[in-house]
Amino acid sequence: MLSDDSMAQSLADCRVGIIGLGLIGGSMALALRGQCASIAGYDTDQAVVEQAIVRGVIDRPLDLSGSAQDVDLVIPAIPVRSIIALIQKLPAMLPGRFHVIDLGSTKSLIVKAMNELPDRIAPLGGHPMVGKEKSGLDAAESTLFRDRVFVFSPVPRTRPETLELGQQLVAAIGARPMILDPERHDQLAATISHVPHLVSSSLVDAAEGNNDEMTWMMASSGFRDSTRLAAAELTPQLDVILSNRAAILDDIARVMRSLEAMADLIELGDEAGLRAKLEIIRKRRAGMYL
Amino acid sequence: MLSDDSMAQSLADCRVGIIGLGLIGGSMALALRGQCASIAGYDTDQAVVEQAIVRGVIDRPLDLSGSAQDVDLVIPAIPVRSIIALIQKLPAMLPGRFHVIDLGSTKSLIVKAMNELPDRIAPLGGHPMVGKEKSGLDAAESTLFRDRVFVFSPVPRTRPETLELGQQLVAAIGARPMILDPERHDQLAATISHVPHLVSSSLVDAAEGNNDEMTWMMASSGFRDSTRLAAAELTPQLDVILSNRAAILDDIARVMRSLEAMADLIELGDEAGLRAKLEIIRKRRAGMYL
Repeated sequence: MLSDDSMAQSLADCRVGIIGLGLIGGSMALALRGQCASIAGYDTDQAVVEQAIVRGVIDRPLDLSGSAQDVDLVIPAIPVRSIIALIQKLPAMLPGRFHVIDLGSTKSLIVKAMNELPDRIAPLGGHPMVGKEKSGLDAAESTLFRDRVFVFSPVPRTRPETLELGQQLVAAIGARPMILDPERHDQLAATISHVPHLVSSSLVDAAEGNNDEMTWMMASSGFRDSTRLAAAELTPQLDVILSNRAAILDDIARVMRSLEAMADLIELGDEAGLRAKLEIIRKRRAGMYL
Repeated sequence: MLSDDSMAQSLADCRVGIIGLGLIGGSMALALRGQCASIAGYDTDQAVVEQAIVRGVIDRPLDLSGSAQDVDLVIPAIPVRSIIALIQKLPAMLPGRFHVIDLGSTKSLIVKAMNELPDRIAPLGGHPMVGKEKSGLDAAESTLFRDRVFVFSPVPRTRPETLELGQQLVAAIGARPMILDPERHDQLAATISHVPHLVSSSLVDAAEGNNDEMTWMMASSGFRDSTRLAAAELTPQLDVILSNRAAILDDIARVMRSLEAMADLIELGDEAGLRAKLEIIRKRRAGMYL
């Protein structure tokens, strides 16, 4: 146990507490096995906690009753608005001094809540850029974060030692760290994740408009890939959307302006103009994911 | 050789001529090996024809000088507007009686051109729902059409024996036949292929609007899949778009109405409304591609 005025400085010494043992939290526990002092876990579904202990994903249950002072690093791995509610209750749930690094998909509102925490709790916003079509502990895997980007959004009061611990965490799970302020993170996340989900959904929605069952039979790999996100689990996604409204609306407006510009060129039959516009886009996209 | 008033009735007896030895034409030749009497091939790039012969993809060059009467089934596998131009010149290129089944991605304009053909040429519109990120003969493979939908759009003058030959062709290459009139084909193709390509491109275009290089570094698997089509080769795609303008504009308008409705719900913070809308879409999409 740490003395009242010191905090764990190295991941190897940390007793980690993970809140939420789904895909992300379960994968984090698996990725951290053997790289920290111990792993405790909490889930609203007690059966999941028991399963995680039986399978050796975590060492023990995490006690949030307010009486146990046995964690040095708390990692909330639950939907965004649940993280915000949790942070408000965290001082009553866990005594003593500890770090908090969350794994929520949007950062501005979480970081705002983190700034209200008492001095004994040292916060840092985090967001691993991962996802899978499956969810839950059964889908968790130790390699989920490997070679993936892990964004940190420090708050004004984030301590250097918490950021250092975050860097150790990212190294331990094999991810690539990126530091972005919360607003910039949220704008970029809207562009590369939240709006693509909504746009994928709009393609399926438009296809319903054909009122023709043959539509679904004719759909091939192009439609499959461009609408894959529309099949994702909805509850965490709604959480993300409603905690990042301004950035999402801004990006939807840009997508619509782009589609309008393309529709104008198509209506005019302006082949050269359409080619020029699409070629810039094609080159940009072809240069990604090499 | 067939007598002047008869046409080959079975694929096994057909001397096939494939025009365009890229991904689609090359794959068709490979898939038809041993299932027809012979395969001749034409490409605007003479080196590709020679390569196709050396590799055993085709048996011989296809003579389009107007003097040779040595094919029973002609399969144009080139971009849509090239097919239209070809069909207009076909009577001068090939004497005698033969079938034509094209593989173009839109059907209305091709079928219109087909209706002008002389009686000795028996046309049928076709469209295999396949695609790959790579193009050209090097990317061709005999299994490209296996288990994929192959749409036929008969013209009013399509003969029963040409449709029967088409069914044999589809069976030979392992595809699944679907018969749709040209306008219905083009509306559905706009919805499941052409507009998803444009929408994918609009996501990349909107991302440029961030003016932030971190956007591209942060992009993960969701952005990768939803924008994969934006990296596709442009020339055949422009051909498709400009030969299907009305259906595409109609579908873009539907996508934009859907996005506007989602933006309104997000702006209002109407979680129940957004959940209801996205849940219908999620269920539909989750039920596809099983």
